[in-house]
Amino acid sequence: MSVYDILKEWGVRDYRVVDEQGIHEITLGASILATGGGGDPEIGLLWALNVIREGNDIVLIDPKDFPDDALTCMAACLGAPVVITEKPPGGKEVLWCLESLKKYIGKEVQAIIPPEAGGVNTPVPMAVAGAVGIPTIDGDGMGRAFPELQMTSFYTHGIMPSPTASANEKGAITIADTVDAIMSERIIRNAAMAYGGSSWIAGYPMTGKQMKKAAIFNSISKSRELGKMVFDCRKTHKDPIENITRILGGYEVFKGKIVDINREFGAEKTKGFSMGRLTLEGLEEYKGENAFVDFQNEWLRLEISGEVKCLTPDLIMILDSETGEPIRTDIVKYGYRGSIVVVPADEKMRTDLGIQTFGPRYFGYQEDYIPVEKLVSKD
Amino acid sequence: MSVYDILKEWGVRDYRVVDEQGIHEITLGASILATGGGGDPEIGLLWALNVIREGNDIVLIDPKDFPDDALTCMAACLGAPVVITEKPPGGKEVLWCLESLKKYIGKEVQAIIPPEAGGVNTPVPMAVAGAVGIPTIDGDGMGRAFPELQMTSFYTHGIMPSPTASANEKGAITIADTVDAIMSERIIRNAAMAYGGSSWIAGYPMTGKQMKKAAIFNSISKSRELGKMVFDCRKTHKDPIENITRILGGYEVFKGKIVDINREFGAEKTKGFSMGRLTLEGLEEYKGENAFVDFQNEWLRLEISGEVKCLTPDLIMILDSETGEPIRTDIVKYGYRGSIVVVPADEKMRTDLGIQTFGPRYFGYQEDYIPVEKLVSKD
Repeated sequence: MSVYDILKEWGVRDYRVVDEQGIHEITLGASILATGGGGDPEIGLLWALNVIREGNDIVLIDPKDFPDDALTCMAACLGAPVVITEKPPGGKEVLWCLESLKKYIGKEVQAIIPPEAGGVNTPVPMAVAGAVGIPTIDGDGMGRAFPELQMTSFYTHGIMPSPTASANEKGAITIADTVDAIMSERIIRNAAMAYGGSSWIAGYPMTGKQMKKAAIFNSISKSRELGKMVFDCRKTHKDPIENITRILGGYEVFKGKIVDINREFGAEKTKGFSMGRLTLEGLEEYKGENAFVDFQNEWLRLEISGEVKCLTPDLIMILDSETGEPIRTDIVKYGYRGSIVVVPADEKMRTDLGIQTFGPRYFGYQEDYIPVEKLVSKD
Repeated sequence: MSVYDILKEWGVRDYRVVDEQGIHEITLGASILATGGGGDPEIGLLWALNVIREGNDIVLIDPKDFPDDALTCMAACLGAPVVITEKPPGGKEVLWCLESLKKYIGKEVQAIIPPEAGGVNTPVPMAVAGAVGIPTIDGDGMGRAFPELQMTSFYTHGIMPSPTASANEKGAITIADTVDAIMSERIIRNAAMAYGGSSWIAGYPMTGKQMKKAAIFNSISKSRELGKMVFDCRKTHKDPIENITRILGGYEVFKGKIVDINREFGAEKTKGFSMGRLTLEGLEEYKGENAFVDFQNEWLRLEISGEVKCLTPDLIMILDSETGEPIRTDIVKYGYRGSIVVVPADEKMRTDLGIQTFGPRYFGYQEDYIPVEKLVSKD
């Protein structure tokens, strides 16, 4: 049964087949939304392009068109971004995860949804869905990227990661099935460590009904719009930062040069993450000011000249001022020049359980969450 | 279907129902065979007694009577012995593992075999089999105890640990399914760490045909004979050490007092094991001599007055000279007085792959394996 037969059975007529250009745009846009994390977009990009070139169609459907009683799950890469770049996938890993998941739950998933917006974890689930011959749901579980398994709107809206299957390139499989989401994260993280630092996963099985309550809608389309616009700006020499800020409804709050990267900062807490603190010195209108950006795979906290300007889960993006290319935690280097854009998180990410699960205190910062709109309007 | 219906279906008439006295004898004997490891026998003992008191029958069958095409698996506790004592099981953990295993492989196991001879991992699988209503196979995968998942005659005779399911007391499940046994060990060990140091597991599914090739036969009966004899010696004030040595075909090689326990020794290698080196000063005919015993959950290497006298996988037992009670790595204390008995390992443990998998070099000692019969006859 092809993906089109499935869509016909569901009565879905409004779908989009994503072409190579689309994959490029989506991957760029998603890597901007990834707020410094999400890994090397080359990996996801090449995988998705390959799937298309092998003759498969990557088909995107709107979340509302996925049947209430059908089953979907997320598929992704989990681990330290820097390791993922060094250990690209063989291509079968997530398929093994899906097979193991099916064996374990006794049911097939009928669509894939990305867990986050990221250079790897947006195109990879699309590639997987294309390879399997099922649709991708135009949405995700964060509207940005986050480091841990339970840090999703899925979880904060009542869906457990269990079971989640994880694989390495040699076909080692780990399944975590727990009543405690943090325990699932711990098991799956430890498995990634056992594999050498990175893993490929599929999990969070949920019905269409559950997904509609819990997912961030249309984030793949949003990524595509964003990526397309940045490519256009590059061609026409328009300012990408201004346009990214406008499309996302955010705020451009700083422009500066990276003068220090402290990868030891906060490092006692963690293994298997890219973690630390970045220091920037202001340029142009921000001359004389400085900024600290704390990170754990993603940028999580922004302080400008002594004032907190953005806190997780709101989005902090550091973008190359000329090209709009996102600067990532795993490859950031001394001397990079970037503009900082902050964007309010999706409302589904701002619930009480959301703030508890991925707000500043969870990451060890001694501050309560304040929405970025308020922090920015203090000026 | 009761365990007796199953046995009738298989045409097995020669089985033994183990009573409370039998559980006491088996547990004591197995904890002697556990060579310092195997954990606190109280835990396994109480569990098995409970299962009997709740009205279940624990039924032992000979390995050769288990049908070739039926499926068995091992069930056990995995983790640091000291943590297991602090965190006794709720009783459901291994049942959850069996359910998960069934879900994953799509088949039910029809008998349980212990992975090792130990104070926990002999009575626990018997208790589990009794609770489920299936027989226990009178055998195991080591004829002694060992710390790691792949260290079994099962593995060294072609059976993989995969899949193995692991659970904690809160119902968290991890399944490891790999082509590489060491990777399974790593995943399952990491899961135990994630749970807080210990876990309950079921795995190594194998057919009767495979089991007959790979298992150590009749080790539960041997444990019972040993335990019964030690209880008799205590009642009749006979020397238990002499009798243990005789029954096992071993050698009494030292009697001494523990004067040092170095738990740092070799500790760089490990987390989640009871590891170190013991020093004993000779008593009576061994006065003036000393002994070092190196351990990692189990006693692994014995050196007496500068000469190596026993190397893993041959068995090193340190036993209370009066009572025959085994002294364990997790509770050994300064001042204990013990007799050291060494015993040749089962021939199934002495294959080339066996020595590679659990011989001295695997544990980091710079010596080739030499059978204990040769080491002892040097005197």
